[in-house]
Amino acid sequence: MAILVMKFGGTSVADLNCIRNAAQKVKREVDAGWQVAVIVSAMSGETNKLVGYVREVSALYDAREYDAVVASGEQVTSGLMALTLQSLGVNARSWQGWQMPLKTDAAHGSARIQEIDTTAMLAKFDEGFDVAVCAGFQGVSPDNRIATLGRGGSDTSAVAIAAALEADRCDIYTDVDGVYTTDPRVEPEARKIDRIAFEEMLELASQGAKVLQTRSVELAMRYKVPLQVRSSFSDAPGTIVCDEEEIVESNVVTGVAFSRDEAKITLQNVADRPGVAAAIFGPLAEANVNVDMIVQNISDDGRTDMTFTVHSDDFDRAQATMEAAKDEVGFEGLVADRDVAKVSVVGIGMRSHTGVAQRMFAALSEEGVNIQVITTSEIKVSVLVQRKYMELAVRCLHTAFDLSDSGQASA
Amino acid sequence: MAILVMKFGGTSVADLNCIRNAAQKVKREVDAGWQVAVIVSAMSGETNKLVGYVREVSALYDAREYDAVVASGEQVTSGLMALTLQSLGVNARSWQGWQMPLKTDAAHGSARIQEIDTTAMLAKFDEGFDVAVCAGFQGVSPDNRIATLGRGGSDTSAVAIAAALEADRCDIYTDVDGVYTTDPRVEPEARKIDRIAFEEMLELASQGAKVLQTRSVELAMRYKVPLQVRSSFSDAPGTIVCDEEEIVESNVVTGVAFSRDEAKITLQNVADRPGVAAAIFGPLAEANVNVDMIVQNISDDGRTDMTFTVHSDDFDRAQATMEAAKDEVGFEGLVADRDVAKVSVVGIGMRSHTGVAQRMFAALSEEGVNIQVITTSEIKVSVLVQRKYMELAVRCLHTAFDLSDSGQASA
Repeated sequence: MAILVMKFGGTSVADLNCIRNAAQKVKREVDAGWQVAVIVSAMSGETNKLVGYVREVSALYDAREYDAVVASGEQVTSGLMALTLQSLGVNARSWQGWQMPLKTDAAHGSARIQEIDTTAMLAKFDEGFDVAVCAGFQGVSPDNRIATLGRGGSDTSAVAIAAALEADRCDIYTDVDGVYTTDPRVEPEARKIDRIAFEEMLELASQGAKVLQTRSVELAMRYKVPLQVRSSFSDAPGTIVCDEEEIVESNVVTGVAFSRDEAKITLQNVADRPGVAAAIFGPLAEANVNVDMIVQNISDDGRTDMTFTVHSDDFDRAQATMEAAKDEVGFEGLVADRDVAKVSVVGIGMRSHTGVAQRMFAALSEEGVNIQVITTSEIKVSVLVQRKYMELAVRCLHTAFDLSDSGQASA
Repeated sequence: MAILVMKFGGTSVADLNCIRNAAQKVKREVDAGWQVAVIVSAMSGETNKLVGYVREVSALYDAREYDAVVASGEQVTSGLMALTLQSLGVNARSWQGWQMPLKTDAAHGSARIQEIDTTAMLAKFDEGFDVAVCAGFQGVSPDNRIATLGRGGSDTSAVAIAAALEADRCDIYTDVDGVYTTDPRVEPEARKIDRIAFEEMLELASQGAKVLQTRSVELAMRYKVPLQVRSSFSDAPGTIVCDEEEIVESNVVTGVAFSRDEAKITLQNVADRPGVAAAIFGPLAEANVNVDMIVQNISDDGRTDMTFTVHSDDFDRAQATMEAAKDEVGFEGLVADRDVAKVSVVGIGMRSHTGVAQRMFAALSEEGVNIQVITTSEIKVSVLVQRKYMELAVRCLHTAFDLSDSGQASA
């Protein structure tokens, strides 16, 4: 029999009514002949409440205890979902991470999945269970302790379980009805995308689109698990995330992503000598700071300016790390700027179409938006702009690449 | 090293402040040289909230899913208690039922403990952990699912873990400072008992005293685990529950217990023939009704009245069962009375002192309290009275047996 994975996020299981609504969607798929693994998040608000408790108790908390506390939210939903399905006449039972088991590494709080043993779950399907309700976000560490996968980790649970069960599809139910060309709150002309390639979704997610967790898309791409992002609150088809071969007509640009969580640091008058980059980025890596964009200005006199961006959460740590390494790096001044944002255009069509960057820069220039830093990948161009221009930049790029027009004349 | 078990009930871990207060008590014992197993309940209100969710979803719920949902309350407290202890510099970690493992039978919702494997916990003590924080109320069933021990089961967890660890003592921290001669809300002259024998505590608990769960006292008696009932909110010594050999001077009557949760059923004009008792109590046992007191009136004419009491929760079921068995039993009428209460006097001194029942009946008679049913055991006399006389009966018995006088002239 064919297996379908259905994942319901926090807003989709916010209360008992929402759980019942989600359970009815599951029942419909069971009635249509699927065996279903349902992956559930905590009821919305629960995880924040539990994290709040932990933080109040201790700022430097033991991640293993954090995991024991926080994973309880998904445990509750899994039991309630199984009960609700049973009340609809569906043969369901709950599975905690340690029961499957879903084995992770020991990196508590943001553990990585190592192996999912589906033997017991498949045996239960064979015994006549129609639905396995799995607590998302959690697994069990090598030390037999509860380990969580990091915030938003239920998406990752869903994709990993879909891969392990060799599911036909993994449907991610959420509070939006699909992946949009950009955030409709910024550009009302944004349009729902019918199909998008894994690579594009990955770039959009990592450049700031919040609809799917980046790790879950990576995993779906690696194991070729087709995803569908769809709404818990309607029956409209959502967005299929799939292999690019399955997309008939690919666009030059598929979407525009943006992120406000950026901060820029410029080290002035750095000695332009071999090893200076290592002297800067080595300590940052050790301090666990993720450096995103890097620009080194042209040097005339043996000295140079080095500019890089970090996530705004890492900003204080990055600045402190650089001040501590000042003598070793040999820079004269540090200029920090938190008043920045990153805007990116993403599309697999860029591989075969030239001129995307040029068209992007021209469109921004026409609106008077100054570009501070540029990075590119095979299917993405990102620019750093002053924060106040972010919305304007998103809208003008959305128009420049004809994204609101469903015909997509630019492709 | 010597092991101490400390159990904190719901009101003792009601919020983060209470948890901190409890953790400080644990730290004091660690500083005094003990290795400590801390057993925690859910934060007060949590279990009721979770049970409410389950009942709202389905009246006839799957007890395995109920257990998965409800056990999460203790999981949260165990993690928060471990974190709080760590923040006080105590080397602590949490243990869920399935992690120890604490193995139960398959009777989900009111499972019985079968075996506690302490190997892993003892190994952690050897590695330098001072405190094992155990989620109370829960274990793991033969099918590898979470099983709970029934309401109030954390007391049972504590005693069973104390027995398995061969702990020197098991301290039950609660919101009262010990076991009283009777409930001070009914008799303000009630006095805290310093030492009480297991057998007495067991009778008091099963006759209505709510300070300890009956099962936990049974278990403590069987494994000779000395208990101490004491307050989370003071440092006063509590009540020691121990072997009667350790009590120097035992009283004729140690305490007065009472229960409002009684209901009386009288079957009128039952044929007085062999097998009639089986015809009545067989169906009740099958319907899972616990029958407490039984009285058969003197028969003059080959017919008799049969009176018995049940817990008021079981009343509807008992009545329906009897109506269904009416023809087989052959009674003429069924008289039900929910307006009753049971009052009991308990004391191991009764074994060697006669006249306790007589003194009890005389005291009640003097106050004009009519006795409906009487039962006795070796160390207990219970009477059923009209509900409105209950408080009066408790107070007059408390006085009659000199319980408010700490000198206990009656002993």
